[in-house]
Amino acid sequence: MALPVETFFLKPDAQGTLQAQIQQMIAEGILSGRFKPGEKLPSTRKLAQHLGVSRITVTLSYTELLSNDYLTSQGRSGYYVSETAPTPPNFRAPDPVQETVDWSRAIGQRFTGGDTPHKPQDWSRFKYPFIYGQADPSLFDHTNWRHCAVQALGQRDFSSLTMDYYDHDDPQLIEFILRHTLPRRGISATPDQILITLGAQNALWLTAQVLLTQRRTAALEDPCYHALRDILAQSRCHVSPVPVDRDGLPPGLIPEDTDVIFTTPSHQCPTTATMPMERRRQLLDRAREVNALIVEDDYEFEMSFLRPPSPALKSLDRDGRVIYVGSFSKSLFPGLRLGYLVGSEPFIREARALRASVLRHPPGHIQRTAAYFLSLGHYDALIRRMSQALHNRRTVIETAIAKHELSVAGLGAFGGSSIWMRAPDGVNTADLARRLAEQSVLIEPGAPFFAGPDRPTQFYRLAYSSIPDARIPEGIARIAQTLAAW
Amino acid sequence: MALPVETFFLKPDAQGTLQAQIQQMIAEGILSGRFKPGEKLPSTRKLAQHLGVSRITVTLSYTELLSNDYLTSQGRSGYYVSETAPTPPNFRAPDPVQETVDWSRAIGQRFTGGDTPHKPQDWSRFKYPFIYGQADPSLFDHTNWRHCAVQALGQRDFSSLTMDYYDHDDPQLIEFILRHTLPRRGISATPDQILITLGAQNALWLTAQVLLTQRRTAALEDPCYHALRDILAQSRCHVSPVPVDRDGLPPGLIPEDTDVIFTTPSHQCPTTATMPMERRRQLLDRAREVNALIVEDDYEFEMSFLRPPSPALKSLDRDGRVIYVGSFSKSLFPGLRLGYLVGSEPFIREARALRASVLRHPPGHIQRTAAYFLSLGHYDALIRRMSQALHNRRTVIETAIAKHELSVAGLGAFGGSSIWMRAPDGVNTADLARRLAEQSVLIEPGAPFFAGPDRPTQFYRLAYSSIPDARIPEGIARIAQTLAAW
Repeated sequence: MALPVETFFLKPDAQGTLQAQIQQMIAEGILSGRFKPGEKLPSTRKLAQHLGVSRITVTLSYTELLSNDYLTSQGRSGYYVSETAPTPPNFRAPDPVQETVDWSRAIGQRFTGGDTPHKPQDWSRFKYPFIYGQADPSLFDHTNWRHCAVQALGQRDFSSLTMDYYDHDDPQLIEFILRHTLPRRGISATPDQILITLGAQNALWLTAQVLLTQRRTAALEDPCYHALRDILAQSRCHVSPVPVDRDGLPPGLIPEDTDVIFTTPSHQCPTTATMPMERRRQLLDRAREVNALIVEDDYEFEMSFLRPPSPALKSLDRDGRVIYVGSFSKSLFPGLRLGYLVGSEPFIREARALRASVLRHPPGHIQRTAAYFLSLGHYDALIRRMSQALHNRRTVIETAIAKHELSVAGLGAFGGSSIWMRAPDGVNTADLARRLAEQSVLIEPGAPFFAGPDRPTQFYRLAYSSIPDARIPEGIARIAQTLAAW
Repeated sequence: MALPVETFFLKPDAQGTLQAQIQQMIAEGILSGRFKPGEKLPSTRKLAQHLGVSRITVTLSYTELLSNDYLTSQGRSGYYVSETAPTPPNFRAPDPVQETVDWSRAIGQRFTGGDTPHKPQDWSRFKYPFIYGQADPSLFDHTNWRHCAVQALGQRDFSSLTMDYYDHDDPQLIEFILRHTLPRRGISATPDQILITLGAQNALWLTAQVLLTQRRTAALEDPCYHALRDILAQSRCHVSPVPVDRDGLPPGLIPEDTDVIFTTPSHQCPTTATMPMERRRQLLDRAREVNALIVEDDYEFEMSFLRPPSPALKSLDRDGRVIYVGSFSKSLFPGLRLGYLVGSEPFIREARALRASVLRHPPGHIQRTAAYFLSLGHYDALIRRMSQALHNRRTVIETAIAKHELSVAGLGAFGGSSIWMRAPDGVNTADLARRLAEQSVLIEPGAPFFAGPDRPTQFYRLAYSSIPDARIPEGIARIAQTLAAW
């Protein structure tokens, strides 16, 4: 039987090349059982005409399907669905399920209901997205990333792509971080003291699991990165929130019974404060005094475009007390999911065993791609371009904020990609965010960063990492207008 | 100052193209502070001559370094290290650290010392690798994977590459699995009932964390996948090992107090038994009777080249009791780290929240690449080619085993990629494996698959997924000789 050409349609919302779409349409028809073995396909000429594409495109699709044994060709008589083509299942989809399981009982541990607020996935449809932590297509070095990824897909790198590394990491990436990335933060480490993680989030999670239990206490900056509180909730440890000041975490306020101190000295999250050298030393002294470990989340150190970054806390650590969290996801793009932990061997050994159990290892291909991107110098070049662009945006946003007399709560003396703001008394910034969203302006309300129960509601964060310079003034103007009309 | 051409050397073990190596050499020289701003580089002609490469290669490297601001060019006078090139750090690496932390106290939870045995990373250097779960370069469809990965790196897919999905997945991959992969297992599900994971390992881990606590009991197949026992150890639940027979897990032996049953009905791991339909129904009845959930690890169902696969247990599930674990890492390559969970909404919701806290989401690029590879039909075509090749190897290995009269303990009626073997009484297969490794033969000792303390030591696994047909007879011969001389 010949398949009528009229039954062939390209989906209007399909992605990929035309050739790929045609291939997909036919493969799906066969797999779903609509096209049966032995059935004859329309000629390339007919199908091309029907779909309004060139004949060569159809021919290429057919040829690819031939080589994959979806189709056979019988000389001049045309193309047929292969007798040995992949087949649809020989059983039917079942009747609808009647849920009888009592899930409120069956679930042993709950993880929903955490502190981390919902963020809009469609942020790029907003005209004034003062959103934090998404990649800006105009800044990212897509071309070179692509080159490196293609290189890492080559035959030479076959094993790094496909191999089960068990609990190991890509040796090329490890070597680069040890020899080039860490020395720039003043840190020296050996391969046994580093572990690649699935982003900084994963690094923080692994650390909390290894170091904390329900009998231990963590000191946290207040405000802090909200997902960190979710992570600590899972470890069921006691939590002591320590209010930060304009220099970040004040060492003197860290309680005696603290086991682990979580801190963001480069750019305090979210207030953007940078911890001065003197306080870094005091913090190390205080940790020694109470016999606590320190987890240093060194996010955004590269974005120090106003002054050179301070050496990492880890570089001042003389007794192996500091665990360092680094990330490439922040500076490259968050979808990369690549970060690392640096710490003493006994700690890294446990974190590695836990990682192996949870997920084995980060995919080899992304590790190798990052290794190439770093070692070819693209990373440093990108950071420089991004710093320049953020520097410009920073000037624009500061000017706009000053013009409209909005209140700055934290500015980040070294740079960064966001400003911490305070709304006038009586304004709940969750409401503000909702009203602004209706005007295509995205801001981040501040309350979720604070420890409960009485969270300040007048703070908000304005990030300038994903909004073009030209849109900043109007975005700020809309915020000012909305606040003026409150 | 001009940099003498003699100080330029390509590393003998360097990887990547010559152009990339030259770029890397110069970028590293600048970043390490060896090459200073303003210093003049050798001319392209001189450097090409010195390195023994073509001049155009050097010119292309210089041009790339120009665009990244490592170099500047001053017309005819040549190339210089840019005055604004990325700089080395302005502080020194610190003195060696004197560890003073008592790590035996500081570590709150230990994860080392688990059941999973050490596997050789250099397995491909063995001539007769009867090793399980690594990719065979001769079977994998590298070309089309590369095409799909390159497509997923395109501008069109920029957001899927770079975006922070928060707790979401790639909608294209989800759609394909729901519409094409699951129906072939007889399963129908909605987007709220599926979660992409970092491989099957991650799926099992998330499931154990959500469903089990120290007050709950898991029933496990004995023997079973060793990493699963590590995962359950982390949840601190009670564990009931249930001895499997030639039809897999016997439902009648599952204890009354069981909360969660872990099973591998398609190919029991490691005995390769396939559970008959009748027993699948009995297993569901037993689960209902004791009010337990079932976690079905459906690994290798695609490798049913001897008979069509049975429908998944999940497809027979009428009350939402079965949680299904699928994986692409097994059939594509383990370094991919991509799997999925299918289950009732309340369960998937908790697993999603936990995943977000642990790692956010699997990298977008690998999700999109897999979506293309699947939807273009490459996956099914690959599975067919692999099945054909495994079928051939299976014939070769069965013939060799019969010829040498080795003892088969489990054969896998539907296919699979391994055979479960029994050595003569008195042979400890851990010793056997060591002796064989000296003869370039890799086998997997069986003891780690069993629950302790008295583990049988005479079993071993022979996988044929990574060894070429032609080498199988000699590999089996060496095993037979070694056993004969025991």
